[in-house]
Amino acid sequence: GKMIWEMGKEWGVTLCKTGKEDPRRVIHSIKVGFAMTLASSLCLLQKEKPPFRGIGQNTMWALITVVILLEFTAGATLRKGLNRIVGTVLGILLVLLVEHLSAHRPIPRAVFMGWTVFVFGAAATYVRFIPTIKKYDYGVLVFILTFGMILVANYQVNNTTSMVRDRFYTIAIGCGICLFLSLLILPTWSGDDLHKSTITKLEGLAKSVEACVGDYFGDAQRKEIQDELPKDSIDQNCIKVLDSKNTDETMALYASWEPRYQGNCYKSPWQQYVKFGDALRRFGYTIMALHGCLHTEIQTPPSVRDLFKEQCTHLAEEVSKVLVQLANSMRNRRHFSPEIISSHLHIALQDLNTALRSQTQILSDSMNRKDSRVSLTTSFEANSSPLRESKTAGPPEQVHGIQEVLRPQRSKHVIASLEFSEALPFAAFASLLLEAVARLDHVIEEAKELGRIARFKEYKAGDDNV
Amino acid sequence: GKMIWEMGKEWGVTLCKTGKEDPRRVIHSIKVGFAMTLASSLCLLQKEKPPFRGIGQNTMWALITVVILLEFTAGATLRKGLNRIVGTVLGILLVLLVEHLSAHRPIPRAVFMGWTVFVFGAAATYVRFIPTIKKYDYGVLVFILTFGMILVANYQVNNTTSMVRDRFYTIAIGCGICLFLSLLILPTWSGDDLHKSTITKLEGLAKSVEACVGDYFGDAQRKEIQDELPKDSIDQNCIKVLDSKNTDETMALYASWEPRYQGNCYKSPWQQYVKFGDALRRFGYTIMALHGCLHTEIQTPPSVRDLFKEQCTHLAEEVSKVLVQLANSMRNRRHFSPEIISSHLHIALQDLNTALRSQTQILSDSMNRKDSRVSLTTSFEANSSPLRESKTAGPPEQVHGIQEVLRPQRSKHVIASLEFSEALPFAAFASLLLEAVARLDHVIEEAKELGRIARFKEYKAGDDNV
Repeated sequence: GKMIWEMGKEWGVTLCKTGKEDPRRVIHSIKVGFAMTLASSLCLLQKEKPPFRGIGQNTMWALITVVILLEFTAGATLRKGLNRIVGTVLGILLVLLVEHLSAHRPIPRAVFMGWTVFVFGAAATYVRFIPTIKKYDYGVLVFILTFGMILVANYQVNNTTSMVRDRFYTIAIGCGICLFLSLLILPTWSGDDLHKSTITKLEGLAKSVEACVGDYFGDAQRKEIQDELPKDSIDQNCIKVLDSKNTDETMALYASWEPRYQGNCYKSPWQQYVKFGDALRRFGYTIMALHGCLHTEIQTPPSVRDLFKEQCTHLAEEVSKVLVQLANSMRNRRHFSPEIISSHLHIALQDLNTALRSQTQILSDSMNRKDSRVSLTTSFEANSSPLRESKTAGPPEQVHGIQEVLRPQRSKHVIASLEFSEALPFAAFASLLLEAVARLDHVIEEAKELGRIARFKEYKAGDDNV
Repeated sequence: GKMIWEMGKEWGVTLCKTGKEDPRRVIHSIKVGFAMTLASSLCLLQKEKPPFRGIGQNTMWALITVVILLEFTAGATLRKGLNRIVGTVLGILLVLLVEHLSAHRPIPRAVFMGWTVFVFGAAATYVRFIPTIKKYDYGVLVFILTFGMILVANYQVNNTTSMVRDRFYTIAIGCGICLFLSLLILPTWSGDDLHKSTITKLEGLAKSVEACVGDYFGDAQRKEIQDELPKDSIDQNCIKVLDSKNTDETMALYASWEPRYQGNCYKSPWQQYVKFGDALRRFGYTIMALHGCLHTEIQTPPSVRDLFKEQCTHLAEEVSKVLVQLANSMRNRRHFSPEIISSHLHIALQDLNTALRSQTQILSDSMNRKDSRVSLTTSFEANSSPLRESKTAGPPEQVHGIQEVLRPQRSKHVIASLEFSEALPFAAFASLLLEAVARLDHVIEEAKELGRIARFKEYKAGDDNV
């Protein structure tokens, strides 16, 4: 008894959560219930009133159509509805054609029809594998279905006209109810969903970048606490963006069937949303690699990291700000100001660059104090040509010799090289951060294009203060 | 006339290509055609022979079931078929219950039924949003459909028993035909597809790693040629892996409905395939970041890169070899040998490490010749604490001054820092390569787990010579 009570409670919580996550789900459910009642009352009426009497048992198809067609978003419903109508009409036409042909054949009608069903069924199924047709997959399915059904039913009833008329009417009524409910009563637009999910993605990436750089420079204590948390929770936002390709494409597909309800019936922006999503994913790959730096085995000691903490954090903040700004301008459906984005970001970029260079200067300065300036030049020339030659040509035993490095008389070199190899992960981190900034350019470009195609409002100077 | 001919030719090519890509598509199409003929001949028979006569117009449902159920893979068909049967049975049971209740109510039957349809329709639609139920989405749809249809049809016909029996029989016959054709005649298993796609992914990543490192160290001439090619063609393999999450999950879902046809009916390995795919995607993110290094604006000059060409290329080859080996062992459904994988890879890893360290040695050696050993120590101590303090605290004007760096008297420093900032991208490249190796460990771990769960054959010493 108690266990059932517990389970019931759990289910209740799940039910409430599902509704709270997206209240439109409740609306959609009520719509479906209402549509079903409407369609079935049509069937019930049929018994009483004369004009519906003729339609016969096929009224059921109105109900079936309603249940199958009414999808969550308007675009999906419209797509299915149009596919269903066109598929039905084509199927009916083909039946009429086949009937006409079979009337003048010497072979038995049943055999001829069996062959027809086989040939058209197989052909239509095969055609569904072609990518171009895949968009109209449901239409082709309905086409096969209607064709087979009516052909067979005809054979039984021998009354083509009334059968065809009934089926067409009932499906038209079902489609009418669905389109009315999904387009006119509290519609849910796929395009809106796509728009919102793009904004969410931008904000998620912004958080992800900041969290990542913050973690990298965060003190060890904080890190230990975070290690107790599930490792994935940190880069969850990023993973969501990376896995969004399929959802994006589906939403864009549905959205492309929706009427442009904002009065601007130019080129559809939905494909550009997908392209923008691609740019975001490209950006996201770099952020994922940046996250990877948090978990590498060899870590640059905090003392080295702290040298660049300020600049890196600043740059990450700027990148994050740009993303948030993009998200905000997208939310208000207006263009963003290109100057604001570039100036701050470029200053942050130069700061980091300068810091990275001055690090070399500290090194070289400390040498200069004890040495002439010539040593600096040679040490860097040594890098480029003469000594390099001797290195690649000369000592292959040095390349293969980790043991050699470990010889006691060279221990100081080992320390030096240790420093270098410990600085390497940080170099990767910094470089990836710079790479992320470079990819941000691509994101901004696509966002600009998106604003152009979707006809966002013009940017005005005061907009950012909101 | 000519244009139509051209279009027809184009269509012909597309049709042939679709079939060649996967010949099983042709088989599937023929199956559907055959199943449809079989189901409709049942309807045709009905007219002639007495045992089928009673079923009435509902024979059509056998045909409908066949068209809707017969999916490309056995798992998908089985899933839909079982969902359809269970959904139908539950729907019928609910109708019987409602009929029983409505018999003793004082309110008009039509009103009661209208309400019932509304309530159950809305509730079932709402339940479909719950993730746990989502797996049985189709079953719930069929449940609503059956419930609404039979309830309404009953109201018209007033013959519950025959209606219910007819519908159940026809759907059972349709399911029977579908399951027979998809499970017993040339079946296409989702599990096999998942297995093969995993192998393809491994091989694609192997190619991708080698191509990427090859490109990075390739001479400039070759690079120009590749720039003319579409930029994406290089990392296409990698992108495919990264976008495969959705396909993987669908295949695993279908596969989980398939009977274990190899006799080992232990824990299902399909979820492990998905997990393995996740590990591969994690690995892929690093490779994508590595690809990003090919297109950065600041590039390390070839002279510096060439210092490490041999080691990096060797390491990439080893990584690629490991991936190919994993793919091969998976193809033969046997375990891989862990020793072979680790030993070569670790040697390559150490080579690169040594090379990276010896690079520092060249630098420091050249200084040592002119200087005492003390300078080396101080220069690295300078790195760590005292000068760092003064740097972070002291000169904020240095941080903000890219102009300062550009002053003529410091031009030598600019060259020096240029060298450093140009070496940075290579450091990132090397570090990412090391990171990729680290993630490869995770891939190998998941592969081992996969081999254990899927009960692959034991590894034998001679297997690799094949």
